[in-house]
Amino acid sequence: MEVKQVLHMNGGMGETSYANNSLLPRKVISMTKPITEAAVTALFSTAAATFPASLAIADLGCSTGPNALFATSEIISIAIDVCNAMKHKLPEFQVFLNDLPGNDFNTLFSSFLPRFHGKLNEQMMSNYGGSASFLCFFNGVPGSFYGRLFARASLHLIHSSYSLMWLSQVPRGLEGNKGNIYMARSSPPKVLRAYYEQFQRDFSTFLECRGQELVVEGRMVLTLLGRRSDNPSSKECGYIWELLAIALNHMVSEGLVEEQKLDSFNIPQYTPSPKEVRWEVQKQGSFSIDCLEVSEVNWSVLDTNSDSDVVSEDGGYNLAKCMRAVTEPLLIDHFGEEIIDEVFKKYEALLVDRMSKEKNAFVNVIISLKKIT
Amino acid sequence: MEVKQVLHMNGGMGETSYANNSLLPRKVISMTKPITEAAVTALFSTAAATFPASLAIADLGCSTGPNALFATSEIISIAIDVCNAMKHKLPEFQVFLNDLPGNDFNTLFSSFLPRFHGKLNEQMMSNYGGSASFLCFFNGVPGSFYGRLFARASLHLIHSSYSLMWLSQVPRGLEGNKGNIYMARSSPPKVLRAYYEQFQRDFSTFLECRGQELVVEGRMVLTLLGRRSDNPSSKECGYIWELLAIALNHMVSEGLVEEQKLDSFNIPQYTPSPKEVRWEVQKQGSFSIDCLEVSEVNWSVLDTNSDSDVVSEDGGYNLAKCMRAVTEPLLIDHFGEEIIDEVFKKYEALLVDRMSKEKNAFVNVIISLKKIT
Repeated sequence: MEVKQVLHMNGGMGETSYANNSLLPRKVISMTKPITEAAVTALFSTAAATFPASLAIADLGCSTGPNALFATSEIISIAIDVCNAMKHKLPEFQVFLNDLPGNDFNTLFSSFLPRFHGKLNEQMMSNYGGSASFLCFFNGVPGSFYGRLFARASLHLIHSSYSLMWLSQVPRGLEGNKGNIYMARSSPPKVLRAYYEQFQRDFSTFLECRGQELVVEGRMVLTLLGRRSDNPSSKECGYIWELLAIALNHMVSEGLVEEQKLDSFNIPQYTPSPKEVRWEVQKQGSFSIDCLEVSEVNWSVLDTNSDSDVVSEDGGYNLAKCMRAVTEPLLIDHFGEEIIDEVFKKYEALLVDRMSKEKNAFVNVIISLKKIT
Repeated sequence: MEVKQVLHMNGGMGETSYANNSLLPRKVISMTKPITEAAVTALFSTAAATFPASLAIADLGCSTGPNALFATSEIISIAIDVCNAMKHKLPEFQVFLNDLPGNDFNTLFSSFLPRFHGKLNEQMMSNYGGSASFLCFFNGVPGSFYGRLFARASLHLIHSSYSLMWLSQVPRGLEGNKGNIYMARSSPPKVLRAYYEQFQRDFSTFLECRGQELVVEGRMVLTLLGRRSDNPSSKECGYIWELLAIALNHMVSEGLVEEQKLDSFNIPQYTPSPKEVRWEVQKQGSFSIDCLEVSEVNWSVLDTNSDSDVVSEDGGYNLAKCMRAVTEPLLIDHFGEEIIDEVFKKYEALLVDRMSKEKNAFVNVIISLKKIT
C-alpha cells in the first residue's frame, strides 16, 4: 500500500463522509485554541518592526468538510483581533490548505470555501463596519507533508491537527504482528521498534522541511493523536485499533476475510508520547519549543466532562461513523469494498459496548514551536 | 446565471470530458510557445542581478486534464534552459493553477499532477543527469480572475490561454437578441454595445488585479479567442455560436425547447480585436506591451495548414466534442440536462456539414505584457 495514494478522509457530503463525521477533530481544534492564540500573538509581536504586508498561513492535512477551514477561520479571527489591538495595518492573508492528492478538494473549493468567505465578510462587517479592507487568498496544496510543499522561507504560520500521527508508510518489519493491526499489547518488541523508527524518520523529515519553509521567528502549532505513557502499546492509544482488530478477526473466523489478508494489514499511524515529540524537535534543531501539552477528549466527544453512565448509544454510533470516515479508504484498498459495511457494523457494536462499560479517551499531544535558525 | 458558479470545463476522464477533448486549446498553447519563450527569457535577463530564489508562475483558467499542466510544463522547460544558458542557479518553482471553483481539481491533482511530476523528473535526469536539485511546488487556486487571487507583488509570470474571452457575467441589456445566443450578424447595435462594455469592465478589472499581483518587470502572456475585424459580429468569431443557435432554434421549432428559454440564453463570452485589447492595456496603465499578435487555428485542428477538402467527418466530430466539453455546463444550467444529447447531435451535424464546404478558423489574439509600475 502506498499510503500517500490511499490515505484520505471520505469525500463528498454523504452519510459516511468525513464532512459529516468530523465532530471529534473539530472539538480538538477548539481545545487547542488558547495555544494557537498565543502563537499568533507572539508571531505578531516579534514581527512588529518588519511586519509583513501579507501573512502566509498553512494548514497541513486540512482534510475536507467544515473542519478544513475551521482552524484557518480561528487563526484569521485571532490575527485580526491582535492586529487591531496592536494598531497594525491588516495584512493580506494567504491561506494554503494542504492534504494528500486523494483529498476531496472539489467539495472543499465549491461548497465550503464560498460559505467560509461569506462568514468571514460578515464577521468583518460586524466588527469593523466594513471600513477595513480585507483580502484573503486561498490555495489548495496537494501533496505529502513528508516532503517539501512550499518555497523556502515563504510561510509565517503552520498549523496541523490530527494529521501528523499518520506515517508516510506502513513500517517495514511488522511480519510478527499476527492478529493485530497496530501496536497492541500482544505485539512483539520488534514491531514496536519498527513503528517507532518510522515515526522518528517521518517526524524529523517533517521538521526539516517545515524548517526550510518557515521564516525565522515563524510559528508552528501541531496537534497529534498521542499518549501519556512511555509504553507505545498502552491501551490509551492502541485500544481503538484493538477493537477494529477484534471486528476483523471475527470476520476471519466467519470466513469473510482471509487470515493472511488480516495479518498483512497494519495501520500506518504512530501515537507518540510528549517525550518522543520533544526529543525529535531537539535533535532536529530548527525550532525552539514554546509549549508542549497533553490533553484528552472522550470517545464520546460531546460529553468529554461528564460521567461514563450518560454516554448513549448515539455517542458510540458517532464515533464509529467518525472512524469509518477516516479509515474506510485504507480498509477498502486492502480488503476490498465488499466487507466494509459488515466490518463497521461489528466495530460499531464493539465501540458501543465498550463505551457503555468504561470511559475511554483519545490523548492529544500539542506542541507550539518557533523557528530559530 | 451566475457565471462563476456555472462555467467550468466538463470534469472527469469520460468521453465528453474536457480532459479527453482539448486538442484545440493544446494546439493553441503550442503555437504561442515562441512568445512565451521570449517572455521567460526577458524575465530572467532583467532579473539577473537580483534573481529570485523562488519563481512564482500562475496559469489562470488552467482547466483540468492534460492541458492544465501543458503550459506550465513548457514554461518550466524554457526556464530551465534559460537558467542553464545564463549560468543562474535553478530557482525553486511555485506553480499556481487557477480556475473557477467548479473546475475538476480532484482529477487534476490525483491523475495529472503525479504524471507531470514524473515526466519533469525524467527530463531533469536526462538533461542534467540528476545533478541539479529541482523543486517545484503546486497550488490549486479556486476563484475568478476578475478579482484578486494572489498576494501583492507575489508573482513573476502569469500565463492564460483561451480563458479571458469568458466574461464575468452575461452582459445586461441583451433582451433584443432574439434567436441569437451571441453577437450575431443579426444582433441589434445595443446588444453589441452591451457585450463590448462588459468586456471593457472585465478586462480592465483583470489588468488592475494582475498589476497588483505581479512584481515590477514581471511578465504576462495572454491568449484569447478573438477576431481580426473591427466588427464584433463578424463571422470569424461568431459563426461557431451561430451554428449552435441554429441547432437550438431547430429544437424550438420541434417543440423541445421553449422559445422564451432560448431568447434568454446568451453566451458570456467576448472575442476582442487586437485593437480593443491594446486600448484596454493602454488605458489601465500598469503594463507595457512587448508583443501583440494574431494567429489562427482551423476548426479542424489537426489540419491547420491543409486544404478544406481533406477535412474528414472526424474533424467535425472532434470539434463538436470539444465544444461540448466547454459549453455543456452552461447549457445544462439554462436548459436542463434532457436536451443536451439532442442539441449536440444537431450541432455536430451542422459543424460537419460546414467543415466539408468551407474553411473556418478560430482567431487568437496573443499579447505579451511587462509590468511597469
